[in-house]
Amino acid sequence: MNIQSFYPPKRTLMGPGPSDVYPSVLQALSRPTLGHLDPLFIGMMDEVKILLQYAFQTANPMTSAISAPGSAGMEACFTNLVERGDKVIVCSNGVFGGRMQENVERCGGEAVMVYDDWGKPVDPQKVEDALQQHPDAKILAFVHAETSTGALSDAKTLCELAQKHDCLTIVDAVTSLAGVPLYVDDWGIDAIYSGSQKCLSCVPGLSPVSFSNKAVDKITSRGLRVQSWFLDQTLIMSYWSGTAKRSYHHTAPVNALYALHESLVLLQNETLENTWKRHQDCHEILRDGLEHLGLQYVVEKPYRLPQLNSVYVPEGIDDAQVRSRLLNEYNLEIGGGLGDLAGRAWRIGLMGAAATKTNVEFCLDSLTDVLKT
Amino acid sequence: MNIQSFYPPKRTLMGPGPSDVYPSVLQALSRPTLGHLDPLFIGMMDEVKILLQYAFQTANPMTSAISAPGSAGMEACFTNLVERGDKVIVCSNGVFGGRMQENVERCGGEAVMVYDDWGKPVDPQKVEDALQQHPDAKILAFVHAETSTGALSDAKTLCELAQKHDCLTIVDAVTSLAGVPLYVDDWGIDAIYSGSQKCLSCVPGLSPVSFSNKAVDKITSRGLRVQSWFLDQTLIMSYWSGTAKRSYHHTAPVNALYALHESLVLLQNETLENTWKRHQDCHEILRDGLEHLGLQYVVEKPYRLPQLNSVYVPEGIDDAQVRSRLLNEYNLEIGGGLGDLAGRAWRIGLMGAAATKTNVEFCLDSLTDVLKT
Repeated sequence: MNIQSFYPPKRTLMGPGPSDVYPSVLQALSRPTLGHLDPLFIGMMDEVKILLQYAFQTANPMTSAISAPGSAGMEACFTNLVERGDKVIVCSNGVFGGRMQENVERCGGEAVMVYDDWGKPVDPQKVEDALQQHPDAKILAFVHAETSTGALSDAKTLCELAQKHDCLTIVDAVTSLAGVPLYVDDWGIDAIYSGSQKCLSCVPGLSPVSFSNKAVDKITSRGLRVQSWFLDQTLIMSYWSGTAKRSYHHTAPVNALYALHESLVLLQNETLENTWKRHQDCHEILRDGLEHLGLQYVVEKPYRLPQLNSVYVPEGIDDAQVRSRLLNEYNLEIGGGLGDLAGRAWRIGLMGAAATKTNVEFCLDSLTDVLKT
Repeated sequence: MNIQSFYPPKRTLMGPGPSDVYPSVLQALSRPTLGHLDPLFIGMMDEVKILLQYAFQTANPMTSAISAPGSAGMEACFTNLVERGDKVIVCSNGVFGGRMQENVERCGGEAVMVYDDWGKPVDPQKVEDALQQHPDAKILAFVHAETSTGALSDAKTLCELAQKHDCLTIVDAVTSLAGVPLYVDDWGIDAIYSGSQKCLSCVPGLSPVSFSNKAVDKITSRGLRVQSWFLDQTLIMSYWSGTAKRSYHHTAPVNALYALHESLVLLQNETLENTWKRHQDCHEILRDGLEHLGLQYVVEKPYRLPQLNSVYVPEGIDDAQVRSRLLNEYNLEIGGGLGDLAGRAWRIGLMGAAATKTNVEFCLDSLTDVLKT
């Protein structure tokens, strides 16, 4: 056995994530490791919390980053909030609604599914009907921005419906955070999770989360302990809390948190509003170019995510071959379809650092070349 | 709000982990991010698996790194193997046995505790007695190297006892992997987890794990699904498997895996035997120096971990003040005591890259200075 060090090439990442990482984020990542209880590191964690509160537009004290990818952030929300026997209304319009259902069931809850077609947003009328039919439902869960299709749902309206029916909300913001407007406090979201590797343009591996005070009340008044020790928010917050005395819970991923800190500093400096506008501006140029190439969007115009553009693979074109050529000849990654859309759609991401006019032009030029030869 | 980029100082990390990180590991960490389904990245994951099999001395196909810290690796072992109602014999001689108990109970299992004093190894006779008293026990769980005390237990003998009584074994190797001899296949360990930030000298955030074929049989014949979706090994292995067709499970922490790969390449190049010897050699120099300073070990000689040296804080010395001075004046981190030993012991780590004669001398000189002024 004689395995050598690994030297990856520099790709342009325009799939569904991970997205291109800001150079200063990679620099931050490789700074000297500190101990996870070092006062300087603890001070940096306090800043990460403040910066995440800004990104989520929330004052929730229980705001932090789970030390694992977005899927673990999803599980943190469900495993803390769903108790055995709880009825949860779960909206499904793509892959990640299905994963929410898995989470509810594995927590011993009952998932009431509200289905919409892949590529459509969640239909608020169907949700209202489900809430009326299930007055004993405790939680409404939905995906804000479906990464598998590129559809944006109306989180504000869905949260209003939940509140009217006295339900807590769990919102998947993995792809939406920092890409489109999102207001956790104004919309009254109770539990939300995201990923570091999408519009924040940090490396993959961390999941920002936030819990409202109402959610905290439900967690602290549970009958049984949370089934996951690693994701138990009552334990995690004794490490992430702002007091001088921190309890050791687990060893934080120190260097990954340096990187998240840096990506959030960049977001702070650009401001949320300018970041949202940059994603929208780049999307419009990309959209015009893709339509010029004759490609059709999976999602109707009002519900399209600027940061994730799903288009159908044209008739007679081999999906895998095109993506493979883009990767190998142009060092450009775009995403394939998932589930129902496997082999039938491409997902072109414009997330965070990848949302630049240079990238849009490079992607359009490369795709044009590959499609005509 | 105007938060600035974070620039940590360079510390010497000689606590219970994270340990000093090899410079080439930090370099690997900051290489360009690839997509988690990029064929080049998948190829690198295959190498990580082979290198982990070497580190664990196993041929287990179900060997991988959990995308989260060691605590999640622990939870992966328990949540996959412990079914509701399963009786598990848990050995406790420090903090981490107690955490194992938490895990068993949160999985709906029954933990039968076998206690030894903090600082002592697990007593095989007590384990044998417990196995005889509980012939319905399914699993024996113990910590190979207790990070909270620095005590090494006889994993080989404990595994033999488990096999004699037809129990699977779950072994915590967070601090032992690459620091002291460990033979997963020869000793017949069924599930084992470690951490990236101890004797592998990688950054914190990943947990190497391995499951024997007997463990896999139990997982695949479960009555109920694993309660964690994120840690469900049957799903994880469809992403980590060696076949060409990978299923997307979660987004791997790409850059952290570059770092783990590099740390494992360094281990391969040094060889396990030489790495173990280096830890032992450095330990002996440190031990002589500490004893020369009049410090007494918490653990008796035959059970001392070379990579984690626990010594009592001398009478009349303020634990926190000494550690704070070492940190602030010498940029040297050593660990304090946990649990019963809080305020009463120091934990001096010689893990991975930190196990050098230069570090030993620096630590002894710094401690001498601080103790005499």
